[in-house]
Amino acid sequence: MLKTVYTACRTCYSAQNPEQIYAGAEDPEKMLKLIDRVISSGHYSTIEHIQVSFAVSNVSRACTHQLVRHRHASFSQKSQRYVQEKGQFDYIIPPTIARDEALKEKFTALMEQISQGYQEFIQSGVPAEDARFVLPNAASSSLVVSMNLRELIHIANLRLCTRAQYEIRLMTKLMCEALDEKWLEPYLVPKCERLGFCDEDKSCGRVKVKS
Amino acid sequence: MLKTVYTACRTCYSAQNPEQIYAGAEDPEKMLKLIDRVISSGHYSTIEHIQVSFAVSNVSRACTHQLVRHRHASFSQKSQRYVQEKGQFDYIIPPTIARDEALKEKFTALMEQISQGYQEFIQSGVPAEDARFVLPNAASSSLVVSMNLRELIHIANLRLCTRAQYEIRLMTKLMCEALDEKWLEPYLVPKCERLGFCDEDKSCGRVKVKS
Amino acid sequence: MLKTVYTACRTCYSAQNPEQIYAGAEDPEKMLKLIDRVISSGHYSTIEHIQVSFAVSNVSRACTHQLVRHRHASFSQKSQRYVQEKGQFDYIIPPTIARDEALKEKFTALMEQISQGYQEFIQSGVPAEDARFVLPNAASSSLVVSMNLRELIHIANLRLCTRAQYEIRLMTKLMCEALDEKWLEPYLVPKCERLGFCDEDKSCGRVKVKS
Amino acid sequence: MLKTVYTACRTCYSAQNPEQIYAGAEDPEKMLKLIDRVISSGHYSTIEHIQVSFAVSNVSRACTHQLVRHRHASFSQKSQRYVQEKGQFDYIIPPTIARDEALKEKFTALMEQISQGYQEFIQSGVPAEDARFVLPNAASSSLVVSMNLRELIHIANLRLCTRAQYEIRLMTKLMCEALDEKWLEPYLVPKCERLGFCDEDKSCGRVKVKS
Repeated sequence: MLKTVYTACRTCYSAQNPEQIYAGAEDPEKMLKLIDRVISSGHYSTIEHIQVSFAVSNVSRACTHQLVRHRHASFSQKSQRYVQEKGQFDYIIPPTIARDEALKEKFTALMEQISQGYQEFIQSGVPAEDARFVLPNAASSSLVVSMNLRELIHIANLRLCTRAQYEIRLMTKLMCEALDEKWLEPYLVPKCERLGFCDEDKSCGRVKVKS
Repeated sequence: MLKTVYTACRTCYSAQNPEQIYAGAEDPEKMLKLIDRVISSGHYSTIEHIQVSFAVSNVSRACTHQLVRHRHASFSQKSQRYVQEKGQFDYIIPPTIARDEALKEKFTALMEQISQGYQEFIQSGVPAEDARFVLPNAASSSLVVSMNLRELIHIANLRLCTRAQYEIRLMTKLMCEALDEKWLEPYLVPKCERLGFCDEDKSCGRVKVKS
Repeated sequence: MLKTVYTACRTCYSAQNPEQIYAGAEDPEKMLKLIDRVISSGHYSTIEHIQVSFAVSNVSRACTHQLVRHRHASFSQKSQRYVQEKGQFDYIIPPTIARDEALKEKFTALMEQISQGYQEFIQSGVPAEDARFVLPNAASSSLVVSMNLRELIHIANLRLCTRAQYEIRLMTKLMCEALDEKWLEPYLVPKCERLGFCDEDKSCGRVKVKS
Repeated sequence: MLKTVYTACRTCYSAQNPEQIYAGAEDPEKMLKLIDRVISSGHYSTIEHIQVSFAVSNVSRACTHQLVRHRHASFSQKSQRYVQEKGQFDYIIPPTIARDEALKEKFTALMEQISQGYQEFIQSGVPAEDARFVLPNAASSSLVVSMNLRELIHIANLRLCTRAQYEIRLMTKLMCEALDEKWLEPYLVPKCERLGFCDEDKSCGRVKVKS
């Protein structure tokens, strides 16, 4: 990963060709120093050369509807049109509901009613793509998502913000941890830490609002 | 619209500069002839210079989840996080359910149960962004979507296919009709009509499958 | 322009559908207030609904090679493959050369030699697409470029920086002036004015470097 | 590569989650069969999960100006602003010129004159970014380019066409060969072989024109 990014960075500023640079790239510390200098100047195109893929499961359709709005990523998501639910569908309970026993029971009961309705439609010959109209945002989904490091930084900056919904925040946090690249960590933070100020309309107060 | 596209087409092949071409563009027939020749050669970038915006209402979240997967378009969609449903939420009933009175009643009853559940969560202090976890794919949404003509052709080619779901097919058809540009009509058709063959895994049989 | 952006902004947060919002949008001051609040929170997708087109002439190929690197814009550029130069090709003289009479003469003489070479290749039957191999970066070009307001802001932030080359800086400045939208002016500035600090490796000193 | 694409394909149509699919993916023949079925139906998004990077050297700036117009790829190109040419710059001679001794000599002489001019400007204190205005399209460049497999297929379809310029055709051919993935070869062909007809305005006659 480092060697590719380093080669890309050096290609812009060097008389050597990329193969020569790649062949001579050996000192990780020197590589990191250049990469950091280039990225911190905002030349993010150099890290587009690395794409990473994540397998995501047990997230709500509410969460994936937010995720797929990022247009610089590639998605292969489980289809509710083609994959018919057998028995009770899996679902996600939001913490504000899960932590209250009475609310949680109400939520679970509603999920069961919906599942029963779904199954009745299927048994009446309604195709899965139409029966799914009753399935809730809570229904769990899974997908493969790929994005380059520039987009990952962009997503982290937006979705690690405390104003993002808890589920996509958590998913983004887990993605960044799964990547496990020390040198990228200073960039995989909420946008306010990059900007030095908060630009949200309703700030959480963590960082001062731009005056 | 025509003058801009014509100017873009001619700029590529002419010694004149774009202002001169634009100023001299007067004969619609001549313009259309060049445009048609350029587009039918696959040089779609020339029609990217025209972007159109549509106001879309009364479509299901199932439909918008498909639409927003088109990454060359811009979307501003009604947020279920920020807009709380007051009373029964609006919803879309798929035709395979709506045409059977018993199924339709079952569907309507389920929507009412879900609405009641949603309102109870709201009244218990659950924020709208979490209460919406129970809202179904059928819940209606509205959005402003903008795309250039190249993307509109791409969407039409895919979504007018009989294999697309009825709702997005209808929405796409209405978009194309709202545009009402005669010269674009030969392009705003299912992909099989452009290709001369059907490439779908399960063909509707309208056009012969590629052997 | 304002009404479309306002409708997009309001659609996200309103129970009204976009047509209703558009129909009721009448007070420019109120519209601007909302738009400014939305954009300054970083929700730039709302201004993607407006796309603008520019006719650009008398710029060097050096400049257009930089411009076409912006991947969220659409370009129709005069082709050196298909448009053969008749007589001396037009060219741009950089100010650092133009302001010195001796250098300017040397530059002009070289352009004439190149032109003569080009014409000799053409007369020997070499196709224009190969004869153009001798044409310099200084050769002037023209193009139609379209981009949405989000991309225009992005380009302005990067290309109005004093570290950008003079020609693309000037071209960007002229584009912003041609747009002539007062409400956008606070955004059509070098990136340092948006960030509050300079992130360039070699700063011009105008704004303090991030420590 | 195969396992990732297979997992993406199966995730859309399977009740299993991506980790389970990936863990169970063992039979290359079975994987290829599914992948081929999915891609030949036009569902190219599944192969976006694989990105490949190429180190490209000894290509003309004429060629790279065409290449960088592909907006779904990432580029890090040797900069003529920051990398100053020491001595004679490298250049590419088009075959239509190289095969004629007299034309070749004329070409070489002109490159030497341009190089001399460039060096004189540098010695007069003109910055490299301005001296480069005299450098020709023939000047050789190098870059790192990355793209996903969908974009590689798109580029191959366009740039392997006999109407593309010889240099970018050759470069594209070498890229496809370097990839060396047998299963992709049926897709890495000129567009006419995919379409079954030629859509170019001036056809080479290899495949029949669409009537």
